[in-house]
Amino acid sequence: MPDSRYLIGLIQMSPEADPKANLATAVDRVREAAGEGARLIVLPELFRTRYFCQREDPACFDLAEPVSGATTTALGRVARELEVAVIAPIFERRAPGVYHNSVAVIDASGEVAGLYRKMHIPDDPAYYEKYYFTPGDLGFEAVRTIVGSVGTLICWDQWYPEAARLAALRGASVLVYPTAVGWHPHEKEAHGKAQLDAWRTIQRAHAIANGVFVAAANRVGFEECAGGGIEFWGSSFIADPFGVILAEAAADKEQTIYAEIDPERIEEVRRNWPFLRDRRVDAYGGITERFLF
Amino acid sequence: MPDSRYLIGLIQMSPEADPKANLATAVDRVREAAGEGARLIVLPELFRTRYFCQREDPACFDLAEPVSGATTTALGRVARELEVAVIAPIFERRAPGVYHNSVAVIDASGEVAGLYRKMHIPDDPAYYEKYYFTPGDLGFEAVRTIVGSVGTLICWDQWYPEAARLAALRGASVLVYPTAVGWHPHEKEAHGKAQLDAWRTIQRAHAIANGVFVAAANRVGFEECAGGGIEFWGSSFIADPFGVILAEAAADKEQTIYAEIDPERIEEVRRNWPFLRDRRVDAYGGITERFLF
Repeated sequence: MPDSRYLIGLIQMSPEADPKANLATAVDRVREAAGEGARLIVLPELFRTRYFCQREDPACFDLAEPVSGATTTALGRVARELEVAVIAPIFERRAPGVYHNSVAVIDASGEVAGLYRKMHIPDDPAYYEKYYFTPGDLGFEAVRTIVGSVGTLICWDQWYPEAARLAALRGASVLVYPTAVGWHPHEKEAHGKAQLDAWRTIQRAHAIANGVFVAAANRVGFEECAGGGIEFWGSSFIADPFGVILAEAAADKEQTIYAEIDPERIEEVRRNWPFLRDRRVDAYGGITERFLF
Repeated sequence: MPDSRYLIGLIQMSPEADPKANLATAVDRVREAAGEGARLIVLPELFRTRYFCQREDPACFDLAEPVSGATTTALGRVARELEVAVIAPIFERRAPGVYHNSVAVIDASGEVAGLYRKMHIPDDPAYYEKYYFTPGDLGFEAVRTIVGSVGTLICWDQWYPEAARLAALRGASVLVYPTAVGWHPHEKEAHGKAQLDAWRTIQRAHAIANGVFVAAANRVGFEECAGGGIEFWGSSFIADPFGVILAEAAADKEQTIYAEIDPERIEEVRRNWPFLRDRRVDAYGGITERFLF
């Protein structure tokens, strides 16, 4: 039996320097989104902090916390109170020297129902994530919550059709992507439009290929750093299972956007465009190779 | 050492009832495209015939031919004469009862350098391809030609990121998709725009995910059939390795479109957005499963 319809809320925010203040803001905005009727609420990647990966600094590891830490405690409390599920990104301290860029799926019970550790770790100028984050070791999963099955992925995972496919094959009805992506100021004029468009396009394509909803919650605003800084491009959005944009945030301000996740729409799209029926699973083995040439 | 730059030409055509006339038209248009400087020229799926898959009729198997048949002979001759590579779709008769929806890659020598048999076979109202075509058994390949390495895929393959990925991992610099896709007249008003947009979006996403050029050559025009007919939507296009549309044909007329395939652009895009670097090949094994739930 399909799940019921529900409202998803994506919180687009501009984290400030103080992690405690960001957590308080997140709790307020979860409360606000729940007030609007959202039952699944998504926060952006690493929302507790500025995007510290703009530089490599061992002191930044102090910003990490265990899964059972302040973030999941505070958000678990509000999730239970409001009976909502919350996608809570954390900078996870797993052991000394083992840190992950993670997402805790907090269900309406207030408990952590699932944990995802970012599998694809970028490392590009001003996105020095390979310095901070051990690649995830929990694979691509979907987590059963009060609203249905949610596939959790994070930012750079957005560029990998394999990740979306595997989370969808696990039964997810929505893929959520907490994100921190933006423009290098010196590139924006020449490449900014194409970059944002590529980012939106590939995620819409994940929706289409898999017949699932896709929701990306990005941070927004300029974060300074010696040598440049990043202008996070906001533009959080929700696409339906045929890639149609249902809601989209501005590129330059904090905002919460909402859309209805309707399992009947998944049924309809997959029935009319039955891509999953015809997958050539006998012929995809090469996908596990690095390159075939 | 990267290949050289070259011009690709996509022939968007409206096949008529007579297969001989269609072949003559194709030869003329290949000649014309070569005259414009194209070195790789792509014809639409099953261009020798009307889209007979609108109905299930055993007599239509008479339209099939072996790989070494009239189509590759005529196109091989013109390819050799003009020193161009031609992507030549054929309705392949392999053995009694074994037919494929195939593409012969004819190199500038005039010889068939590679054969691709459509791997993903659709079957939907008015696209009864499972009746006619045995699923391909040659996998996803790239074929070395005078202009470089070409990944050949066909129509319904467009909806499968796995197919694009595997052809790209084989070293293709361009993925070509001979196509026959259109609107059901009764659906066009309600769904037509979203269908065309999804089709374009997912192929642009293959370009982005893999850092390759993507080229789709569609048929165009209305083909009648008892009970409805299909309005083929044309809109053939070429996208660069970041998904930017370089050229796009009209939705309602025959046309040949051109764009430059520049291996330096692949280098640039993959260097700045190094998605292939970070693939989690250790974690993609589930891709060969039908479903994981």
